Amino acid sequence: MTYCVGLLVREGLVMVSDTRTNAGVDQISTYSKISVWERPGDRVFCLMSAGNLAISQEVVSLIQEDMATAEHNLMTVPNMFRAAQTVGKTVRAVYSIAGRELEAQSADFSISLLLGGQIKGEPPRMFLIYAAGNFIESSVETPFLQLGEHKYGKPILDRAMTFETRLRSALKLALISMDSTLRSNLSVGLPIDVFVYRTDELEVALRKRIDERESYFAGLREQWSTALREAYRGIKDPDWFQG
Amino acid sequence: MTYCVGLLVREGLVMVSDTRTNAGVDQISTYSKISVWERPGDRVFCLMSAGNLAISQEVVSLIQEDMATAEHNLMTVPNMFRAAQTVGKTVRAVYSIAGRELEAQSADFSISLLLGGQIKGEPPRMFLIYAAGNFIESSVETPFLQLGEHKYGKPILDRAMTFETRLRSALKLALISMDSTLRSNLSVGLPIDVFVYRTDELEVALRKRIDERESYFAGLREQWSTALREAYRGIKDPDWFQG
Repeated sequence: MTYCVGLLVREGLVMVSDTRTNAGVDQISTYSKISVWERPGDRVFCLMSAGNLAISQEVVSLIQEDMATAEHNLMTVPNMFRAAQTVGKTVRAVYSIAGRELEAQSADFSISLLLGGQIKGEPPRMFLIYAAGNFIESSVETPFLQLGEHKYGKPILDRAMTFETRLRSALKLALISMDSTLRSNLSVGLPIDVFVYRTDELEVALRKRIDERESYFAGLREQWSTALREAYRGIKDPDWFQG
Repeated sequence: MTYCVGLLVREGLVMVSDTRTNAGVDQISTYSKISVWERPGDRVFCLMSAGNLAISQEVVSLIQEDMATAEHNLMTVPNMFRAAQTVGKTVRAVYSIAGRELEAQSADFSISLLLGGQIKGEPPRMFLIYAAGNFIESSVETPFLQLGEHKYGKPILDRAMTFETRLRSALKLALISMDSTLRSNLSVGLPIDVFVYRTDELEVALRKRIDERESYFAGLREQWSTALREAYRGIKDPDWFQG
């Protein structure tokens, strides 16, 4: 499985992904699930994918190829809505190639994508694109979107994250959310990939790969664990029964 | 959906369940998912169920009926392993009545159960019983078992719970785990049912229904939320990017 999370705040965009792929527990590999494209001063995109690795690699390859060969591609679209539509069309194109054969062999056409970024002239936006090529957009009320194993890491986002969260704190929250998932689900694994974009800068603010040796993330995991245990100890026990 | 969690510790057994059932979002009801049987001084059982409500009600009804009419039933079995086997046999009996028809109508035969308790002569034990009637038992290394929407509430148990956790603290942990689930998933809802059993007492220590007016649980939810937000604020932000 996979866990990807994107947080859109007033100050910018944070997207974090794990890198574990597996075809059964005896076939585990590390693959980047993140693609970043930018034309500084004009547009920045970050695309994260979950699902069947063959499908997501084909989608990304076609998007990339279209930038060199097609008239309508991510570098020529006028806004993020058209960018999401372009990715959605590519997903449908891959389905038209391989979808029926996968289904005939009882394999799902499984893919979902997070596309975040900004094109000059409008604010940063973020979309969740489904296997059918349709999509939803995040909003001020729903400022985060998730792919894959999303449940373990959702409670902290539900409680602490808003559109007004500062960009650095949004990154910290995304890392805490990832830590909860790493800790409780073996199919999600280190290293993790981090992308940060600051509103209106029109170039990438940060791309970083984090493994177990990265000291800030190791410290965050330790401090979060300790804080949770202390929080739990700090609440008095119920006195509903004797003894 | 449903969330049920059972924690087996040295001092006893805590089992907590929500009460929401739904057949689509416009058909939501409150049903107890917990059955408790005891013969003080000899045996105590707590059974919690998730899945198709018609199936779980039929299983519980047959178990109950068997106590009056069958030679082998929960009140006559010599140990908890045989008790779990008896429940598993009842699940198979219900499958033999309704399973094929459900499948013919594209409905799953979906049920899972948690059975906890103690029979005089052995320590308390807890089992997770599947739709096929087979089952697994909790252990010192794996002291909690969950049914239904288990992911939201798993991280805190993974971090804080062991077999040596005190009984009152285990109840507090189960409530925190339930709170995380209630907060992030609409299909799990108040009120919740609580069962507590203390090792070797051979009678129920506590049965309690908790709704939004119950002051301890309301306080716990508030304190836990505050503590999480403070824990998150207490960790310094990453300084990986400028500005």
